[in-house]
Amino acid sequence: MNYKKLGKILGKIMILEGILMLAPLAVSIIYRESVQNMLAFLIPIIIVTGIGLILQIPKPERDNLYQKEGFALTAIVWIFMTMFGAVPFVINGDIPNYIDACFEMMSGFTTTGSSIISDITTVSHSTLFWRSFSHWIGGMGVLVFVLIFIPESNDGSSMYLLRAESPGPQVGKIVSKMKMTTRILYLIYLGMTVLEIIILMLDKPIPGYENEHLFFSLLATFGCAGTGGFGFIPGSMQLFSPFSQYVMAIFLILFGCNFSLYYLILIGKIKEVLKSEEFRCYFLIISTAIALVFISLVGRFDSFPQDYTTEESFRHSLFQVASLMTTAGYTTTDYDVWPMLAKTTLVLVMFFGAMAGSTAGGIKISRLVIALKGTYVNVRTLINPRYVPRARFEGKHLNQKIINDVFAFFTLYFLIFLAAVFLLAFDPVNGDTFTIISDAGTYTTEHGFFSNFSAVLTCISNVGPAFEAVGPYASFAEYSSLSKIVLTLTMLIGRLEILPVLILFNRRTWMRS
Amino acid sequence: MNYKKLGKILGKIMILEGILMLAPLAVSIIYRESVQNMLAFLIPIIIVTGIGLILQIPKPERDNLYQKEGFALTAIVWIFMTMFGAVPFVINGDIPNYIDACFEMMSGFTTTGSSIISDITTVSHSTLFWRSFSHWIGGMGVLVFVLIFIPESNDGSSMYLLRAESPGPQVGKIVSKMKMTTRILYLIYLGMTVLEIIILMLDKPIPGYENEHLFFSLLATFGCAGTGGFGFIPGSMQLFSPFSQYVMAIFLILFGCNFSLYYLILIGKIKEVLKSEEFRCYFLIISTAIALVFISLVGRFDSFPQDYTTEESFRHSLFQVASLMTTAGYTTTDYDVWPMLAKTTLVLVMFFGAMAGSTAGGIKISRLVIALKGTYVNVRTLINPRYVPRARFEGKHLNQKIINDVFAFFTLYFLIFLAAVFLLAFDPVNGDTFTIISDAGTYTTEHGFFSNFSAVLTCISNVGPAFEAVGPYASFAEYSSLSKIVLTLTMLIGRLEILPVLILFNRRTWMRS
Repeated sequence: MNYKKLGKILGKIMILEGILMLAPLAVSIIYRESVQNMLAFLIPIIIVTGIGLILQIPKPERDNLYQKEGFALTAIVWIFMTMFGAVPFVINGDIPNYIDACFEMMSGFTTTGSSIISDITTVSHSTLFWRSFSHWIGGMGVLVFVLIFIPESNDGSSMYLLRAESPGPQVGKIVSKMKMTTRILYLIYLGMTVLEIIILMLDKPIPGYENEHLFFSLLATFGCAGTGGFGFIPGSMQLFSPFSQYVMAIFLILFGCNFSLYYLILIGKIKEVLKSEEFRCYFLIISTAIALVFISLVGRFDSFPQDYTTEESFRHSLFQVASLMTTAGYTTTDYDVWPMLAKTTLVLVMFFGAMAGSTAGGIKISRLVIALKGTYVNVRTLINPRYVPRARFEGKHLNQKIINDVFAFFTLYFLIFLAAVFLLAFDPVNGDTFTIISDAGTYTTEHGFFSNFSAVLTCISNVGPAFEAVGPYASFAEYSSLSKIVLTLTMLIGRLEILPVLILFNRRTWMRS
Repeated sequence: MNYKKLGKILGKIMILEGILMLAPLAVSIIYRESVQNMLAFLIPIIIVTGIGLILQIPKPERDNLYQKEGFALTAIVWIFMTMFGAVPFVINGDIPNYIDACFEMMSGFTTTGSSIISDITTVSHSTLFWRSFSHWIGGMGVLVFVLIFIPESNDGSSMYLLRAESPGPQVGKIVSKMKMTTRILYLIYLGMTVLEIIILMLDKPIPGYENEHLFFSLLATFGCAGTGGFGFIPGSMQLFSPFSQYVMAIFLILFGCNFSLYYLILIGKIKEVLKSEEFRCYFLIISTAIALVFISLVGRFDSFPQDYTTEESFRHSLFQVASLMTTAGYTTTDYDVWPMLAKTTLVLVMFFGAMAGSTAGGIKISRLVIALKGTYVNVRTLINPRYVPRARFEGKHLNQKIINDVFAFFTLYFLIFLAAVFLLAFDPVNGDTFTIISDAGTYTTEHGFFSNFSAVLTCISNVGPAFEAVGPYASFAEYSSLSKIVLTLTMLIGRLEILPVLILFNRRTWMRS
């Protein structure tokens, strides 16, 4: 293990986190919050910057990183970012329990958006800002951020970092000139963020929150861009105007696209975008899902309390599918009481998420496509042993190695999923009854199997809200500390796509090879 | 496609089914049922035997079978067996709807035990016998049965049949002299069946059912041996004495073992049995699961209505874990109201089932072990690219091909699972409320997500009862015909371990190669 080099990169990211935390500190000053609230950010800024600077002192013997070091570093960075990023919430008292604060921060950086805050109205502006801002930071990956600042090396060590962190089964060809590409991707990310803020500002402010127009536009956009989805007023996006809801739904779908596609558009290769198989599947799935949810709402399948107009049915279908499939997790209505077809559709899109190379979580559409093609190849080979596989994905030959990696991913996802559901079964909250107050009225819901199942789903896919007792109008506050730790790890596993976390916790990683 | 050869084997199995149906016909005569009830079996016996004989006429050009033909034939056989086996239920009026009857029959042959009969007391003896007998037939595989009667060929075509039908990822070395081995396995199966019947007969008859002592002992044993689990009196095994419940639990665990192990015991190699990794894992998982359920019942985790004594808690824990893990699905109490830890444990054991090479369904313990070892190998290789995998399973080198096949199986299982849950979401029964009367009292339950989720789980794993609206004291009767067809196919996919069904429905199978 090249500890000194690992420390150096970790240190740089600590310093970066210190710099990023200046933003919520500024918010705290602008809103004239208490000195305690300001110190809540100032103290961790000093600590992380200090640690970061100290870690720069030792000189590493070699400058490159092995693959295992890249993977382990990625997991370490996310854990450190979370552990230090959670400190302000404890100091300013918005989340007094440190495990809760870590849950919230991990939920922020992994762009999950699951919250343990049960009453969002009591929380300070600086806390709200830091939570949502962490989505935006986490969105494109903390390490990719840093790649811009560290010198490009030819040995491919930064490639390992990118591979460990980038969502999706493979890093496309566009990373050949990685540093350049990273900058371009960030400019696209930044550009789309600014565009969404501007469009949201064009809307009228939310009644009763006239002074918060810019602030809310910023937070809402951070959540969209990072596909995070922390709420900051009661009812998530319920109070936003239909116009803003439409705007956000469209931006969510855009942020769920592989960013390489925007790069292709920029260099004028629009035809290639339309030829992308994953892109086509993404739009096919998203439109089918919207149609199914819409039909089940308009057709009033089963019985459900809300009395939507046709426009509302369409808007909520569009918004919820966009929000849960891109794994943002914003909500405009209480989908937990919807008909089974709508709920099941939402569960399925939560499993698969959006495109690889986007800010979204989940298994990713590309893996679904590869798994289906891989199955076809396997069946064909069984039918005719002389069959030579000709399967292609995105124009490239789909070799057995890629297929097997995807199968391995599904298997691990499946096993980790079951393990997490099992661990949540120990929680004393199981079987408890909760009162939910939403646009569907006031009703009680039990913390049952579907609560735990969907809690794990929402965390591993980095969505945010789940169903039943952890539905859109509930919070994760009632879970025990053990369950919160399990879910926090599940979010990390989901965001880093399993392997870096497994490598971090494998003792072989830390042994001399 | 060697249609004539396929037809010939299919024909032989049809004739065999005709012969097997003589048993329920005899039951019908013994219990002096109506002429209609006797004709209900006599007519299909004549039809299947007739078809079977006609199929013997054409002379096949070649005598061997290709792999794809073996796989496709297996799936066809199960579908034909089910479609003809369901006819008696329609004629005698016990299950007037043919789709329902096919569901019930597929549930029988696949040793699932899910039932669409909501009031079992109205059903004739011959129907009860045929349902439970089909478990016993299905238990060891219909085709393996036939292998005894068809001449042993050297080209390995019967090997393909066995491979398609035998539960578990690989057929052990014991099949080298297959015909001989098959006979030995059947003798073991038969011996254990007779032994269980005798032990159950030693018990006192169930009060109120004194005349049915032998009949019930037979049916109960058929369900244990095939790990099927159709109930035949209200409350499944609830009315059976504690003694009988203990006996059945032990036999269930025994029938969940790989039958090769008994062969090893017979030839005196007991040490090899104890060395079997899958055997050890099986017992480790089953004891852990019993302990967890027991603790959650005795510790009264969450709140649940039953007021068990310690002995009852232990007995029900033992019985339910044994019954659901071996995928039989008999019940002694209403486990649907149990604490979450108990329910989640039951869900997990339902996923993985028992040992490969047993009569049980599910993913199988061996696949779980291989998946975990395969993951370890993958992670080790990532940590150190020069790592040479040394993973072994059952003493043999675990090559990447076996690991990849298991990963592919998990992926397919996962995708088919989600697809089936999705299809059930269209059912109008979703959201309906049902009244359940059980040993836990009278209560209402809603047909929610967990109902559909556990319905698919119980069918794909060939267990039988599920949770909520399809729990141990409910039936599958309320599902729509479409959902019943989906679940019927899911049972077949689960029993044949996916690939034969995929091959059957692939048009390439039917094209000239």
